[in-house]
Amino acid sequence: MAATMKALRKTQAGKGLQLEKVQVPAIGPTDVLVRVKAASICGTDLHIYGWDRWSQGRIKPPVTLGHEFCGVVERTGEEVFAVRAGDFVSAEMHLNCGHCQQCRLGQAHICQNLRIIGIDVDGAFAEFVKIPATNIWKLDPAIPEHYAAILDPLGNAVHTVLAGAIAGQTALVTGCGPIGLMAIAVAKACGSSTVFATETNEHRRALAKEMGANLVINPAEEDPVKTILETTGGTGVDVLLEMSGNPVAIQQGFKALRAGGRASLLGIPTENVPLDLVQDVIFKGATVQGIYGRRMYETWVQMTALLKARRVNLEPLFGERLELENFENAFAKLQSGLAGKILIYPNGIQK
Amino acid sequence: MAATMKALRKTQAGKGLQLEKVQVPAIGPTDVLVRVKAASICGTDLHIYGWDRWSQGRIKPPVTLGHEFCGVVERTGEEVFAVRAGDFVSAEMHLNCGHCQQCRLGQAHICQNLRIIGIDVDGAFAEFVKIPATNIWKLDPAIPEHYAAILDPLGNAVHTVLAGAIAGQTALVTGCGPIGLMAIAVAKACGSSTVFATETNEHRRALAKEMGANLVINPAEEDPVKTILETTGGTGVDVLLEMSGNPVAIQQGFKALRAGGRASLLGIPTENVPLDLVQDVIFKGATVQGIYGRRMYETWVQMTALLKARRVNLEPLFGERLELENFENAFAKLQSGLAGKILIYPNGIQK
Amino acid sequence: MAATMKALRKTQAGKGLQLEKVQVPAIGPTDVLVRVKAASICGTDLHIYGWDRWSQGRIKPPVTLGHEFCGVVERTGEEVFAVRAGDFVSAEMHLNCGHCQQCRLGQAHICQNLRIIGIDVDGAFAEFVKIPATNIWKLDPAIPEHYAAILDPLGNAVHTVLAGAIAGQTALVTGCGPIGLMAIAVAKACGSSTVFATETNEHRRALAKEMGANLVINPAEEDPVKTILETTGGTGVDVLLEMSGNPVAIQQGFKALRAGGRASLLGIPTENVPLDLVQDVIFKGATVQGIYGRRMYETWVQMTALLKARRVNLEPLFGERLELENFENAFAKLQSGLAGKILIYPNGIQK
Amino acid sequence: MAATMKALRKTQAGKGLQLEKVQVPAIGPTDVLVRVKAASICGTDLHIYGWDRWSQGRIKPPVTLGHEFCGVVERTGEEVFAVRAGDFVSAEMHLNCGHCQQCRLGQAHICQNLRIIGIDVDGAFAEFVKIPATNIWKLDPAIPEHYAAILDPLGNAVHTVLAGAIAGQTALVTGCGPIGLMAIAVAKACGSSTVFATETNEHRRALAKEMGANLVINPAEEDPVKTILETTGGTGVDVLLEMSGNPVAIQQGFKALRAGGRASLLGIPTENVPLDLVQDVIFKGATVQGIYGRRMYETWVQMTALLKARRVNLEPLFGERLELENFENAFAKLQSGLAGKILIYPNGIQK
Repeated sequence: MAATMKALRKTQAGKGLQLEKVQVPAIGPTDVLVRVKAASICGTDLHIYGWDRWSQGRIKPPVTLGHEFCGVVERTGEEVFAVRAGDFVSAEMHLNCGHCQQCRLGQAHICQNLRIIGIDVDGAFAEFVKIPATNIWKLDPAIPEHYAAILDPLGNAVHTVLAGAIAGQTALVTGCGPIGLMAIAVAKACGSSTVFATETNEHRRALAKEMGANLVINPAEEDPVKTILETTGGTGVDVLLEMSGNPVAIQQGFKALRAGGRASLLGIPTENVPLDLVQDVIFKGATVQGIYGRRMYETWVQMTALLKARRVNLEPLFGERLELENFENAFAKLQSGLAGKILIYPNGIQK
Repeated sequence: MAATMKALRKTQAGKGLQLEKVQVPAIGPTDVLVRVKAASICGTDLHIYGWDRWSQGRIKPPVTLGHEFCGVVERTGEEVFAVRAGDFVSAEMHLNCGHCQQCRLGQAHICQNLRIIGIDVDGAFAEFVKIPATNIWKLDPAIPEHYAAILDPLGNAVHTVLAGAIAGQTALVTGCGPIGLMAIAVAKACGSSTVFATETNEHRRALAKEMGANLVINPAEEDPVKTILETTGGTGVDVLLEMSGNPVAIQQGFKALRAGGRASLLGIPTENVPLDLVQDVIFKGATVQGIYGRRMYETWVQMTALLKARRVNLEPLFGERLELENFENAFAKLQSGLAGKILIYPNGIQK
Repeated sequence: MAATMKALRKTQAGKGLQLEKVQVPAIGPTDVLVRVKAASICGTDLHIYGWDRWSQGRIKPPVTLGHEFCGVVERTGEEVFAVRAGDFVSAEMHLNCGHCQQCRLGQAHICQNLRIIGIDVDGAFAEFVKIPATNIWKLDPAIPEHYAAILDPLGNAVHTVLAGAIAGQTALVTGCGPIGLMAIAVAKACGSSTVFATETNEHRRALAKEMGANLVINPAEEDPVKTILETTGGTGVDVLLEMSGNPVAIQQGFKALRAGGRASLLGIPTENVPLDLVQDVIFKGATVQGIYGRRMYETWVQMTALLKARRVNLEPLFGERLELENFENAFAKLQSGLAGKILIYPNGIQK
Repeated sequence: MAATMKALRKTQAGKGLQLEKVQVPAIGPTDVLVRVKAASICGTDLHIYGWDRWSQGRIKPPVTLGHEFCGVVERTGEEVFAVRAGDFVSAEMHLNCGHCQQCRLGQAHICQNLRIIGIDVDGAFAEFVKIPATNIWKLDPAIPEHYAAILDPLGNAVHTVLAGAIAGQTALVTGCGPIGLMAIAVAKACGSSTVFATETNEHRRALAKEMGANLVINPAEEDPVKTILETTGGTGVDVLLEMSGNPVAIQQGFKALRAGGRASLLGIPTENVPLDLVQDVIFKGATVQGIYGRRMYETWVQMTALLKARRVNLEPLFGERLELENFENAFAKLQSGLAGKILIYPNGIQK
């Protein structure tokens, strides 16, 4: 095995990324080295590429990006027993401390000392990535490689949908980016009776239909609150799955929620959102849930069970597949907003 | 409207039923009179026909049987506002007292003073049936009439399946009578990843497959515990849905349940069942739920949402459709055990 | 029994209330007539007295006020069996419709067609009040009369505290009006390990201590977020019980809440509250609950069990006891904000 | 520091234990060495002393016993950061594998590959004990040393009591051994309105009263089911906390449970228990929970919060305090069944 490898890195404070030759990571006794098959670019990677304010505060160059991926185990540390070379794997890229109150309470996904592989330490846009054995997720070979590369965002969707009852429930997905689209498919697979979706972009509205949404509304042309209330006999939806981070969409989502309903918020607004707490939360007896990451590892269990059983069709979501070397092309396409999930292959595209 | 009607009744202590002319029920200010479209025969009706020990203790002749049905509202009492003549309806046939501890705690389905229409008071095997307005369930016209006639047992299945998490969970249905078969379809519709089923009867095993079971086991020929443990990598199933009441099936179900799993028991054993509480419940950290009736009215909301959205296909379950006059024929077929849900039409079969 | 009675009423649009002679209410077959022993004045009654904007939109004079009370059953309708003349009772004053989605789902306290006795129909500031039998709550004689008169606000506190886990949890009560003070006592009685409270009023801070708060903070003098984070080793509190409706207190409450914690909101802000959804809800994985009224009737069961077992001491909360005729005196004292719960006795003060 | 230490061990298959000099354990990079202050003898230790059938199948001599203890950290491995020499600690003695389905689902206490320190590997009846850092539980100095020595069984009690709602609930504790007695205190501290207890032993019945039980019944003299049903107006208790493992007590517990109630089973029967599943579980709509160990580490968080806040008084439970050398004395006293929790001090009794 070669001592060096290709890696896509932020090497200095500023816009852009660099493809470099770096050392293959050395692993410790409880680590696993994974040969990356396919990785996927997240919206967060776009922010880091563009070097926005958040990136400037968080990223400490040099660091290899990439936190959505799958691969094959190359090598394991001497104290690793549950994983072996040759295993087909993905990984939870959030590293929790294990001893804060949240870790002790089974809420490791909101650990007080969270670090993220591909953000805070070297990630998966490389031929190899080092992962602690605890965070490795072994995959059934029945799960297709391209699905395996996007378990991180799919896990966001599954976490959000299954944060409360969904079977026999009406749901509204506000925002049909990749995670919103996944949430539609997951909600339907888990028995949601009617899924409403709102989205201003025409292409994404078409995808929402394809993913199984029953009624897709363009809020630029039609009042979604009015439509949803009419369709539900004035009651509103049982569940709001907020995926946009858009203040107007959030407010509409709360207005369309029935009294006693659940609002699960995953989208990240960039500013404070003035909520009508009295009418939309208190008098409604609503339950509002902040959703972050994936439950470790309940969400992984649920998600891979659904995939293994072929309960969720994600095919419409995928865009182009590119070699790592074509990263500029990939990022440019994603900037346009309509590329779907672009997969990159650090070890080359096979078949 | 005529003053009398046909009704299928138990008129005296002893075997059999009698078709009689009786008065159309007079309704009080909070009652609803329903013209019965289709009714379905329950296993309980067979017990009453056969006049078994349970029937002898419970039934006080004369009484009209029938607690699974749908129909059209004929007339309403003067204080009834939420239902109108012409509405397509079914009804929850369990009458709760409203003031015991269970009623006060939102557990009306296990009210301390429960009475059942069609068991304790005159039921739906008649041209008309009287129902308190509180118990009427208005149906969306999108729900087919034959489905509407079997909401009582479908509600048992939905109550059992949705008594805990099911999305992304493996499940075992022990016993594939009508409710077990419905439970298979409901579990799949609500995202169960793999449904195992056990059943000794060949015809029912074929139906289980048709309803969506992934692996159907004949426990007379194959050890279901061994098969399920092997298939689940030694872990066992997440959820046991016990529909048989058979002591051996119950014991096998518990052995096949994973540590930390849920066992929801609906089937009624006829004797005490010696449980290995230590290995099967305590050391396993299992949760065991007794399931009775339908939650009033959460189950009805869930069930009709699933049906309206066409998430559950029940077609394979249905058997013959007969006029009320042919009741002996219907009961004889059901005694044979393989008839599916037989529907009877007190007001004649239309179309 | 006399045909007329005293009643404290809003007889016309405008400030103030009028003490009048009116007919004793006639009751229907499912109603109960209660002779009022003690009633308590709510903040809402003050708003109606003052004829604020909310009152102008909601109140349709003439109407008798009063929705916190206890009394003795005088007479029952002919279809009432669970209550008898002579029973010591209070009542849930929210009237639910019984057929909306919320009523069907066991969420009657947020019924879509809610009406309130003492707001929308004649209430308990009178010698007699008419209540539907379903809403009557029979009381154990072990519960003192003055406690029985304030079950409505105590139910708000119990509903809020028990809307999630509280045993072994740290809690913050923001706002120490009567319901906040009750929440402190209830939280301690139910095993909260540490109760923090914030309140600007000195008298109320002293009461908070008396009710069992471990640390009472004056947010006008000390940053409660800093103090709470320091005291909890940087983690924050497990549970926020928001009782103030004050936007600053709400924001501080969210900042003091630990990641993964529960925020239960009962206080009513008078304007939109700009929430930092990202930091305070989403990244925190927080659960936010709108709390309204009392669960019908789970909260009543819990509350009266706690009182009967003498687990909650409310004595410090009570203020003066007055005859109904002295109502102006009572309202004036309450305007001052420091009167505690003032009880009025429409049938005279006994002992 | 000396290289050898005293340890109380099972050195060969057969009755009895031996006090030996052994090497102080060597620790690995993620381990912690704890100097034992006080240890407590569990019923399981008595079984191992007596070499019963279970012990013969499970224990592989030589092994040092002891799984209830507290102490002070002596030394930590080089990769341990959350604990330091000098810290006052106890530990969860169940070692979970980290990669089975249960570990992944946050149910590590029922891990498929569980090993127990003091049963399967050397335990705390010694001057020093080696514990993986993950399993160390740091203690607030406010928690008294003798309480800190019995967190393992207290955790069983807290786990059982808090496995469902307890505030404002009536509870029945069947069996008043040490864990049953602790459960009484915990249930009261967490707001149980009425705690019934059954116990045949007079001394333990007296202790049950002291711990806060409201009504203590001797089932040898009085039918507890009849008494409890009468006391609860025919309804039964909300919660059964089964601590005896006695088949008759279990059956009585189920009969005394209200419809819709919760039965949490911790006691270990030595044979199959014939349950009346129909009347006691299914028709009752009961929830039955198997309880094992302590939730890792939610139970530890709850338990130490309650202790730190002095919400639970355990003083009546404690028996004699002895040097490790007097172990025969301690085991003899415990055989008699009435000794309370006997503490032993491997490093000598201080103060």
